[in-house]
Amino acid sequence: MSFSVPPSSADLLAAGPAPTADMLAADVSEFHVVLTGDRPTGSLRLGHYVGSLQSRVALQHHVQQTVLIADLQALTDNSGRPAHVAEHIESVALDYLAVGIDPSLCTITVQSHLPALAELTMLYLNLVTVARLERNPTVRAEIASRGFERDIPTGFLCYPVSQAADITAFRATVVPVGDDQLPMIEQANEIVRRVNRLTNTSVLPECRALLSNTPRLPGIDGRKASKSLGNAIPLTATHDEIVALVQAMYTDATHLRVNDPGHVDGNVVFAYLDAFDPDVEAVCELKMHYERGGMGDSLLKRRLIDVLEETIAPMRDRRVMFARDRALVHELLAAGNARSREITGGALAEVRRAFSLT
Amino acid sequence: MSFSVPPSSADLLAAGPAPTADMLAADVSEFHVVLTGDRPTGSLRLGHYVGSLQSRVALQHHVQQTVLIADLQALTDNSGRPAHVAEHIESVALDYLAVGIDPSLCTITVQSHLPALAELTMLYLNLVTVARLERNPTVRAEIASRGFERDIPTGFLCYPVSQAADITAFRATVVPVGDDQLPMIEQANEIVRRVNRLTNTSVLPECRALLSNTPRLPGIDGRKASKSLGNAIPLTATHDEIVALVQAMYTDATHLRVNDPGHVDGNVVFAYLDAFDPDVEAVCELKMHYERGGMGDSLLKRRLIDVLEETIAPMRDRRVMFARDRALVHELLAAGNARSREITGGALAEVRRAFSLT
Repeated sequence: MSFSVPPSSADLLAAGPAPTADMLAADVSEFHVVLTGDRPTGSLRLGHYVGSLQSRVALQHHVQQTVLIADLQALTDNSGRPAHVAEHIESVALDYLAVGIDPSLCTITVQSHLPALAELTMLYLNLVTVARLERNPTVRAEIASRGFERDIPTGFLCYPVSQAADITAFRATVVPVGDDQLPMIEQANEIVRRVNRLTNTSVLPECRALLSNTPRLPGIDGRKASKSLGNAIPLTATHDEIVALVQAMYTDATHLRVNDPGHVDGNVVFAYLDAFDPDVEAVCELKMHYERGGMGDSLLKRRLIDVLEETIAPMRDRRVMFARDRALVHELLAAGNARSREITGGALAEVRRAFSLT
Repeated sequence: MSFSVPPSSADLLAAGPAPTADMLAADVSEFHVVLTGDRPTGSLRLGHYVGSLQSRVALQHHVQQTVLIADLQALTDNSGRPAHVAEHIESVALDYLAVGIDPSLCTITVQSHLPALAELTMLYLNLVTVARLERNPTVRAEIASRGFERDIPTGFLCYPVSQAADITAFRATVVPVGDDQLPMIEQANEIVRRVNRLTNTSVLPECRALLSNTPRLPGIDGRKASKSLGNAIPLTATHDEIVALVQAMYTDATHLRVNDPGHVDGNVVFAYLDAFDPDVEAVCELKMHYERGGMGDSLLKRRLIDVLEETIAPMRDRRVMFARDRALVHELLAAGNARSREITGGALAEVRRAFSLT
């Protein structure tokens, strides 16, 4: 006779990769519910991998994690090109599968397939004033960067409320964000407290931010990586693309001859080696050598090409494999959507009950 | 052998009360889809009957009509008292049944039970700028009358978009409104045109307003009827309430003695007789007599009491009957919600398809 025993938390922790330093510092354990996600407006890049995808792959072994493909949020500033957003839903899903997000460990789901998110947003919109949303520093910065001025789509102004709906619908307790997104977490928790106070319940849990310690990966020209600048390395670049992009990478403008002492700070090649080279000690020695002089850029770049090829090759292979079987990808998304509809529908039902809306 | 034959449009027109003058003037035929509704924030009053309920009872024999209990919209300025809104859902449904809205002819449904409405709202919010909503004259007037100033709940600012979702989800072609609500219809049609243009389809139909010619029923003190002033007659007032309210009714301050000539204009009793007395000729004679002098207020008021009792008694009886069988009321609402979920879900699916969001 045999039993199927649910794994204990010790087993869970033993099963996957070790928790990241971020997770340990933030005391993220298997009791936490984590929600992350991306807007499907383009292919993901190495910067996304370093900044968040990598940590999601680690997190999936330790916590209950959902990755949300936020198509509704993408439409808040892409309403003129819905087909572009729609196309990138599958492409982002493929990127997730490519980096090793495992749908049996981590739910992948699509925002617009979860009606409870829209329903919760409608309820929460009544609990936040227009003035409060206009004061949100993240929204202000993004409005400025998009040049919306007075022509802000209402959905864009409201998206912090929609994010609060996402977070609370999944009962997320931990939300990995960049520090520029902290006002969003604050806004979500304000709504949580308001719902709980209004309904005299504790129907919703507050969440906290999981800030990454990983420095932001620069573009190959040292500027902020951005799709429009074309200075980022795609998550599943071909070998030739890797070579071309690394060859074009900025190093140190003062390092004219091999024997000149070079600068490591602000040197894009070292930023990438720091992010991807598993041999930390060797990178440290390279840095010292480079600073002393006598180390050529071409040698460095050859090393980085090898390191990136090693990082990217398995992702590329997995992406090709899944891209061949689109029916499977749709099936995985459908399963994730079904599971998420149950979870978010449950949360909505509880909020409705708290508001006597039965 | 017998067949159940669906009624032809001629049968439909023959079956019920004659179309109202409003309907004929607006060329409302059986091909139209009509959406009306109320916010469940209190019991309905005779003013609602004259202004809209009466015409809904007539319309239900001629067109496909849905009456929406707009609980989500009620919450946009009642977020602090969700239980109050929730309680009035049933009470408004009872009022509908009391006045003779027949669920077999006209769908009664509850807004928050139709997820497609929230989902369409989320999509439409991206198509309307904040500045456009702030310019909406109806919203401006309502913001002023509620004293919101800068503390406007975001849901309140957004409610024209939510109404556009309601209208389009039911594919309504005719929406009965007061003239103060015309900007709402304009806003809805703007969204319809924007969706059709963006998706290069004609997925959504435009709608038009059905303006009532019926004058607004004043409060018993001659001012605008309002719950807070307590100057309105409840839809299902008891006989004693009718007597007390009619006795307190303003007539003509200059009409001190029976033999004095009296004024008909601005005389609340005559406004009510005009609205409810079926014997138009007799009312006309009364008016002439009153203006000549020799007609006492008490005689007039006795007539009005009888007229109102005759109008209200059957409503009161029906309301008592349905209130005794709350399970039936819930069943009727559940059936209306199920039917409406199908209709609105179908419209949402088509809009999603047009936006490639499948």
